[in-house]
Amino acid sequence: MSVADPARVSCPAPPAAGDAVLLGHGSGGRLSAELLREVVLPAFGSAEAVAEDGAVLAVGGAELVLSTDAFVVDPLFFPGGDIGTLAVHGTVNDLAMMGAAPAALALAFVIEEGFPIEDLRRICAAAGAAAAAADVRVVTGDTKVVGRGAADGLFVTTTGIGQRRPGVTVSAAAARPGDAVLLSGPIGAHGITVLGARAALGFESEIASDTRPLHRLVAAMLDAAGPALHAMRDPTRGGLASALNEIAGASRVGIEIDEGAVPVVPSVAAACDLLGLDPLHVASEGCLVALAAAETAEPLVAAMRSTGEGQGAVRLGRVVAEHPGRVVMRTLTGGRRIVDMLVGEQLPRIC
Amino acid sequence: MSVADPARVSCPAPPAAGDAVLLGHGSGGRLSAELLREVVLPAFGSAEAVAEDGAVLAVGGAELVLSTDAFVVDPLFFPGGDIGTLAVHGTVNDLAMMGAAPAALALAFVIEEGFPIEDLRRICAAAGAAAAAADVRVVTGDTKVVGRGAADGLFVTTTGIGQRRPGVTVSAAAARPGDAVLLSGPIGAHGITVLGARAALGFESEIASDTRPLHRLVAAMLDAAGPALHAMRDPTRGGLASALNEIAGASRVGIEIDEGAVPVVPSVAAACDLLGLDPLHVASEGCLVALAAAETAEPLVAAMRSTGEGQGAVRLGRVVAEHPGRVVMRTLTGGRRIVDMLVGEQLPRIC
Repeated sequence: MSVADPARVSCPAPPAAGDAVLLGHGSGGRLSAELLREVVLPAFGSAEAVAEDGAVLAVGGAELVLSTDAFVVDPLFFPGGDIGTLAVHGTVNDLAMMGAAPAALALAFVIEEGFPIEDLRRICAAAGAAAAAADVRVVTGDTKVVGRGAADGLFVTTTGIGQRRPGVTVSAAAARPGDAVLLSGPIGAHGITVLGARAALGFESEIASDTRPLHRLVAAMLDAAGPALHAMRDPTRGGLASALNEIAGASRVGIEIDEGAVPVVPSVAAACDLLGLDPLHVASEGCLVALAAAETAEPLVAAMRSTGEGQGAVRLGRVVAEHPGRVVMRTLTGGRRIVDMLVGEQLPRIC
Repeated sequence: MSVADPARVSCPAPPAAGDAVLLGHGSGGRLSAELLREVVLPAFGSAEAVAEDGAVLAVGGAELVLSTDAFVVDPLFFPGGDIGTLAVHGTVNDLAMMGAAPAALALAFVIEEGFPIEDLRRICAAAGAAAAAADVRVVTGDTKVVGRGAADGLFVTTTGIGQRRPGVTVSAAAARPGDAVLLSGPIGAHGITVLGARAALGFESEIASDTRPLHRLVAAMLDAAGPALHAMRDPTRGGLASALNEIAGASRVGIEIDEGAVPVVPSVAAACDLLGLDPLHVASEGCLVALAAAETAEPLVAAMRSTGEGQGAVRLGRVVAEHPGRVVMRTLTGGRRIVDMLVGEQLPRIC
């Protein structure tokens, strides 16, 4: 099959939004983007910020990055992590994707009345340990309590402030035709782990979440590639497919990836197969996709592989001038298929 | 009655925390402080930050303030405001209490599936308008959706970053014996308004929330008093009583206030009377208490009165070396009573 003209492609229609917020509006996929574009961002006059993981602020002589994320993962504890760890890593990584080293974090909890104090203690300890391991301090916070039934256990919003290296300009809008598309390691472990941990699903697995901080990997990449590193994104909600689509859209370029190059560990692949999920739509919390000038691809992959977080780094594809805003996969059988953003909700409350 | 030795005062015992989080842990009063001190802060090695509204960070040559707050007010819309307005003002004010001008805000929503899109639009528009009116930009955000019953409509966490004036050192720990205690205007309107707006209470009132940004008032105060302005706090959750107790505790000083000087508008006083609430424990969202060197009190009150937000400014009392950590009120009848922090929960989900 050949790639149709994007303007003529017939995509699955997103569920009609009607008058109410749908679960899919939180998916990180197309409905999320629509809600932001049509309802949220116009109120703040900042529509251009939609594709970035944070905002860049010039303060004094420094460039700061501010990033915020609400975490509502269900369950709160899962193999390989918990909501506290995830929240710290998620915000450290959002800062890292903007080329910033984390400087400080703020944590705000919303807790349901009756929540076990011991679980709160565990979550705080895990968040504190994750912050210490990432060399970032939690400097301020807030705690609110709502009545029974008014929240599901505990939510936490993490906000991070980081300092950007001078000269770094990575942005979801900065990918260019000719760039190589790199991925730091296998995808999908976090999403499958959280699904597996939901007792109601009756799904058992030995897979653990890949949640981890990526700022040291990013530092190694910036050392190796400098300004040739154009764009980065960690494929969390909405998975690799949504991350690549966001970059393709923001940069007005096409992206081609090779099916055979997409790393998925066998247990994750098997679980996806069983559950009817496309691994390209399943969240990771410990890998990143990077778009960089082709001539730096080899040393950049080597630099990534020299770190613990990037030892599974691969070259996944390329940026093209054709089909701007579209991501296309060359399949193993030689065909080509459009890789669309997640439409609707596949895995609610994954982070 | 005379004031007993603080060490021998018999206070009402806080409800036993047991194994579960109680509504009172979110009150902003003594249980909140206990939860922070015993469960949350030890995990982050930042126990000293408990009494401040934000954290100060040195970046480049500038002093930045980072502050975060989760808003869970019920109902979402109330006379004089809504959760979006409140969230923006609350964070602008937390920055202002640290002597910082707001530079940028981040907003993170947690939305319950089924929430009306139109209400989300209204809340975003109100937050956007509040930010514009306060001359601060909302630069980044996040939106998560949870299933029906997993949240109560909508929560929003606002995080602000501000730049502190060079030389400003206001801190809840910086009040000194001899300081004058000033209040910018009447207390309790916000708390009574939110209570009144709860249909279940069947309580009607013409009172509107006093929610508003206070950074311009603070700027006028810093202009007038400079380093003689030692401490500020906006008496939100837990009310004026908790704000004064926090300052008394952090500064290890005693505070005396005069009952006749505490401004409460008649409608708020009447509602408190009806509902059995102490106005000293009822939240305000548009006034502040300030502790400053006594010799600057007169010009400082004059400067406060010259602003719209501070036109009801009064001198409320004084800081003393006796009974450190305690707030005492001289009553109209010439007696003295201890003004304690709110214990347990008086008004859940007020902000």
